[in-house]
This record gives sequence, C-alpha cells and structure tokens, in this order.
Amino acid sequence: VLEKIPLKEGNTEARIIHFYSSILDASPKVSALKPNYAFFAQYGFEGLRALRELIAKYKGKYPIILDAKRGDISTSAGAYAREIFEFYGADATTVSPYTGSDSIKPFMQFPDCFSYVLCRTSNPSAGELQSLKAGGKPLYLHVAQNLAALDEGKGLLGAVVGATAPKELRTIAKVLSPAKGPLLIPGVGSQGASAKETAKILKRAYGENVHLCLINASSSINYAYLEQKTEDFAGAALKEIERMNKEIHIR
Amino acid sequence: VLEKIPLKEGNTEARIIHFYSSILDASPKVSALKPNYAFFAQYGFEGLRALRELIAKYKGKYPIILDAKRGDISTSAGAYAREIFEFYGADATTVSPYTGSDSIKPFMQFPDCFSYVLCRTSNPSAGELQSLKAGGKPLYLHVAQNLAALDEGKGLLGAVVGATAPKELRTIAKVLSPAKGPLLIPGVGSQGASAKETAKILKRAYGENVHLCLINASSSINYAYLEQKTEDFAGAALKEIERMNKEIHIR
Repeated sequence: VLEKIPLKEGNTEARIIHFYSSILDASPKVSALKPNYAFFAQYGFEGLRALRELIAKYKGKYPIILDAKRGDISTSAGAYAREIFEFYGADATTVSPYTGSDSIKPFMQFPDCFSYVLCRTSNPSAGELQSLKAGGKPLYLHVAQNLAALDEGKGLLGAVVGATAPKELRTIAKVLSPAKGPLLIPGVGSQGASAKETAKILKRAYGENVHLCLINASSSINYAYLEQKTEDFAGAALKEIERMNKEIHIR
Repeated sequence: VLEKIPLKEGNTEARIIHFYSSILDASPKVSALKPNYAFFAQYGFEGLRALRELIAKYKGKYPIILDAKRGDISTSAGAYAREIFEFYGADATTVSPYTGSDSIKPFMQFPDCFSYVLCRTSNPSAGELQSLKAGGKPLYLHVAQNLAALDEGKGLLGAVVGATAPKELRTIAKVLSPAKGPLLIPGVGSQGASAKETAKILKRAYGENVHLCLINASSSINYAYLEQKTEDFAGAALKEIERMNKEIHIR
C-alpha cells in the first residue's frame, strides 16, 4: 500500500513501479511473483497501469500469479479469464469455488495458464463455511476433491491453502500430491505461520515434487525495511527473503 | 459484449458508452443498473474507462450495483471495497462468502453503500457446493443466516439468489424478509426462469416490501434487438423491459 512505500517522487503509478522494481531488480531468490489485484485496483487506473507494467517487465523472468480471486458464472468467468491472462498477461491466477465447476472451466481454456482454487484460506473467519462438514467431510475437502477431479491430472488447477491451518494443509496436500497438483500457500510471515513447519508438511506429502508448492509472503518482505529499521527497502526485502529461504531450505 | 454491440464507429470505450447510453437515455422504467465488471474488464483500460464513465453519468438517477463478485480476506477486502465504492463510485456490489465474515465486513464500512452476498447462484453448477448439507442445512442457508446475523438488521447486506432455483429462493426469502434484507435475483430472461413465478414468490415473502427485491435481466434486454430482428437496439431494449415489467407487475 502507498502509505508504506517510502518513495515520495512521481505519481502513484511511478512510485509503485519504482518500489517493486527496486526489490525485483536486486534479483532476489524467489520462485514466483504474486501481485494482489486489490492493492493495485484501490488506486484506480494508476494502480492498474502499474500492475500491468510490472507484469510485462518481469514476465518470463518469474512466473506471475495475479491474485485476483475471481469467481463468477460461465460467460462472466470467461471474460475474467481474458482479463487476467490476455489483458494483464499473467501466467496464473486465483479463483473462488463457491459457484462451482462452470466458473472454473473457462480458466482452463488458456494454454500454459493455470489457476489456484481457494480451498482453505489463511484468515481468521476461513472456517465459518470452509470447515462445515457435509457427508462427513469438511467443505474444503469437497473443494480439493472436486478440483482434482476437474483437473484430470492435467496440472492446470491447484489449491490455495493457508499455512495458518497446518492440519487442513496436510489433508489437502494428500489429495493433490498424487496427481502433482500445485499448491499456493499464504499465511507465513506477517500472518504468523511458521515457514519451517509448513515446508516440513509439504516435503512429506510432495517429496521430490515439493517445488510445486509455493509458499507466499508479501507484507513481511515488502515492508521488511520497517521491521529492520532501515531506509534501504530493497536490501531489507532481500535479507528477509534470504532468511525465509534458509528456513524452508527450498532454494 | 462488443461483438453484439451493433455500432461500428469509435474505439471500444466510445462504442460501449454509446450503446448503453442510448438505452438508458430513452428512460426505461428500471429500478437499478447492474453493470457486470467482467464484461468491461475483458477489454482492458478502454472497457474500464467506459464502465467508470457510465457509472458517473447515471449515478443519482439509478442506484448502481457494480457486479464484481469480490471475495478476499480482510485487508484485501478493504482495498476491493475502496476500488468499488470510491474509485468506481458504485452504490452497491456483489461479494462472495467463501472466505467468511472478515471478507464482508470491510464492505459494510462505507456509508450508504451496500453489498449482495452470493447465496444461491443461477448457474448449472451452483449446487455443487451450495446445496451440500451441513448440520442438516444446505450451505446456501448457512450463508443466508450468517449474512443476516452479520447485518444485524442494518440493511447493508443482501443476498444474490438465482430465479432458476425457486425452492431455494423461497427459503432464502423467508430468512431475509423479516429484517428487510434486500435480494438481487438473476436468472430470468436468457437464463430461462419465469419473471412472473419469481415475482409471485417474492410478493408472498416480502409483501409491501417487495421493492427490496431486484429482478435482474441483462442479455435479454441489451440484445433484445437480435431477438426482435431490428436495428433499433434501444427501442428493442425498452420493449423488452416493458414486457418484463408487465409480467412482474412491479412497476
């Protein structure tokens, strides 16, 4: 968010681009970028132009997951897929499962693009619906099994599972790992879950395919300079990334 | 969608604005406008500029429901609420319930703005999750009761319920009508549900408060000129609106 970007020059668009480029041009060891659509969209067209420009700048260098949590029915879902994969040029996105499979299928029509379906999210109220039991199984497990069935082993669909829910993470990893379904895992860093514990769970389920699991941290990296009490925000971000990578031993 | 807009002059932005303005400037008897974010966003910035301009043009004349189906956790939800209510200036929006109440609360912080929570949608795969029974109750009923509890009778939250599911519509109307919770009802028109039957169900539940229920048709109105085999798309839309209004006897 703009209030935490320690750059005063230029308009909103320029400041956002400058901030993230400084971090990324320092070549951090990260597996993917996951821009959150909401944080750009709140600044209107300036924010969205910055988003598009950043994607164009780093596409090919990192896989880009545009975290947009779209969730609408068939023809609308198709329009959203075009927005994300064609207009913004993202490689992957996040989608909501509430409206069922006809909202997810249009996202599977784009060659080389894939989607993470919200399964068990990392927020405090996640369980209100996601942990309800139907037919002896919690809702998030229905979602995981449905998406695995829909994917038919193609690897076009993965799941979003919060590291803040390790028991659920274990269950979902068990469903998706046999067919090499990818996982996107928020919740470490400022949301409080341990990167080390999370990595352990993932290695046990995925073994040598653990690279299919992406552990995601945003605020704790972007705003590491606040924690480290320095003005060198890019340096602070790199340091935090290195610290986390060491903790998870993935790279 | 652009392919169905029978106007060849101007760029994408101009054609979208011209098309919808022509219909709306003919003063149709409608209760609200419900632009679908996806259909504008698929055309990138030109589409989004048209969306914003149309909202600015008709704000105050009609309540504007920006159908964006946002659904993300707390701070992201707050950013989405700013996008919808501040940047686009909509009066209302649609939100997904999958991540629970902390994704809905930020939308309740905007004075005079309200939100429709997806409850039972109108699409073929809606039931996959929404009809699962937990604790003897289908998921959509959990959602309806949760949102009624969260709203505490303030009237800031309503529900999206497809007219294609009349039994579910009846159940949800029963939950929300005592506290005058508004309903947004897609599914009539090109999706096949009967406007007349829908209006009957709503009148029975809401009585004199039936104006809180908005029956929504989009394609069948916008593209009525195709059905009516005419080039006068604004006239055809008016004719279809009048036909529907007569059927539901609401105005």
